[in-house]
Amino acid sequence: MGRYDIAIIGTGPAGVSAAITAKIRNKSILLVGSKDLSNKVAKAHEIQNYPGLPAVSGAGLQKALLDHLAAMDISITEEKITLIYPMGDYFSMQGANGMYEATTVILATGVTLGKPLPNEEEFLGRGVSYCATCDAALYKGKKVGIVGWSAKEEAEADFMKEYASEVYYFPQYPDEVHVKDDVHVIREKALEITAAGFKADGLVTDKNTYSFDGVFLLRDSVSPKQLVPGLVLDGPHVKVERDLSTNVPGCFAAGDIAGRPYQYIKAAGEGNVAALSAVSYLSEK
Amino acid sequence: MGRYDIAIIGTGPAGVSAAITAKIRNKSILLVGSKDLSNKVAKAHEIQNYPGLPAVSGAGLQKALLDHLAAMDISITEEKITLIYPMGDYFSMQGANGMYEATTVILATGVTLGKPLPNEEEFLGRGVSYCATCDAALYKGKKVGIVGWSAKEEAEADFMKEYASEVYYFPQYPDEVHVKDDVHVIREKALEITAAGFKADGLVTDKNTYSFDGVFLLRDSVSPKQLVPGLVLDGPHVKVERDLSTNVPGCFAAGDIAGRPYQYIKAAGEGNVAALSAVSYLSEK
Repeated sequence: MGRYDIAIIGTGPAGVSAAITAKIRNKSILLVGSKDLSNKVAKAHEIQNYPGLPAVSGAGLQKALLDHLAAMDISITEEKITLIYPMGDYFSMQGANGMYEATTVILATGVTLGKPLPNEEEFLGRGVSYCATCDAALYKGKKVGIVGWSAKEEAEADFMKEYASEVYYFPQYPDEVHVKDDVHVIREKALEITAAGFKADGLVTDKNTYSFDGVFLLRDSVSPKQLVPGLVLDGPHVKVERDLSTNVPGCFAAGDIAGRPYQYIKAAGEGNVAALSAVSYLSEK
Repeated sequence: MGRYDIAIIGTGPAGVSAAITAKIRNKSILLVGSKDLSNKVAKAHEIQNYPGLPAVSGAGLQKALLDHLAAMDISITEEKITLIYPMGDYFSMQGANGMYEATTVILATGVTLGKPLPNEEEFLGRGVSYCATCDAALYKGKKVGIVGWSAKEEAEADFMKEYASEVYYFPQYPDEVHVKDDVHVIREKALEITAAGFKADGLVTDKNTYSFDGVFLLRDSVSPKQLVPGLVLDGPHVKVERDLSTNVPGCFAAGDIAGRPYQYIKAAGEGNVAALSAVSYLSEK
């Protein structure tokens, strides 16, 4: 699929804005996210301070942004990027459906406000995984726990059951769950990863302790520290300059992930700036 | 008229966005600018990258912003602020129609790309003025030159003629000029202020040299260095942090004046951030 000029990770207002400006500047773009754009936008009751769209509903802003993308012939790749590796003069990205390459990357994934579970980061890649599609084959005939923070992870649990002998699914949201009959649904709050020596070996909830060969933690967004090795953070945010560059050359950030305030118009403004900074970076190379 | 919580200087996308967010946060605001908002917006042919308003015309964005202000019952004070003086815990502002006070100030005046004329800054207040309405009375019976960068300064020339014995008006724009018959209209390019010792005494154009008792330089926006004494600049821009604070406590900047890129959606995003930073500053006081 070749190497894109700019990969934009996230389809909230920051990612959409970055894509629009990058497209105007005639760059090849990979816009990764959801065809619904952003849960946070879609579920907003009323947005009063997106200038030009007075008292717009979340669904109204969602539609306005989708219409803008359609008018500019920008498509969304429905994919979950779990690792972005800086290769020197480009980035290699691991997604559930394949690998991608881009010369520059704009992180617009929103902010993960929850802290990682104890032992989660320490045992990532050693019994803990963020991507069922990527790692399911490693758990053939094994017993696996999957913690899902939104209903769209239910398909991952079903897919896992094609390999694993036992799958326990822990929904961390209130909605009704629809998974295969042979997936065990456990309505308990995930609290901690357990480990024995080198490897994670289970999950502690608010009610029980479970032994697993592998634990999958499926959130809407991966923490930026895990996403881009070597990225310098400032609390839960990526540390950025005024031009939205990060410490990793060619990697930019925009929107909530780049810091407070968490506001739609601020995110849209930053997407624009990040795209133009990426364009400058490309022209200097 | 009391002391406002937040004075917002400028009615482009940055100023409008700041006003909307400040109003939502229940602050008393003074929004200073033009009822037409911004010449730059109004005259834009087509704006492709204001997310949510695909391919909007400049006039269309202007209308959308005006409708938003109207929907939120935010009024614009048509005024030209020529000096903002930090008084410690508030700001005193000099306008053509009077003095104003505010606890915080957001500069959203756009950027003045032209360089000041030679001797302009040195002799400001000593024969050079930015405000005919403010200083006309000082030039009773005198000979005055007025350099105007837009047609709306023509009223200033007419007003000046009520005091000065001779008024020479130098339009720096191509449009037809409508001033009183006894105002001399000179179509020459202003190049330099002349001075004798302590005081400015004339104007050099591309064709002639004129002797004046006072020279008025009327641009759409005053350079930030002149506007707020002590403000630290970065080239033609105000130096700001990520939260859009400047080096002057309580003074924030947003939009083109705060740096490149000069983009509508970036300005709107920054107006929002500056307003929320001003709100934080107010609550900490």
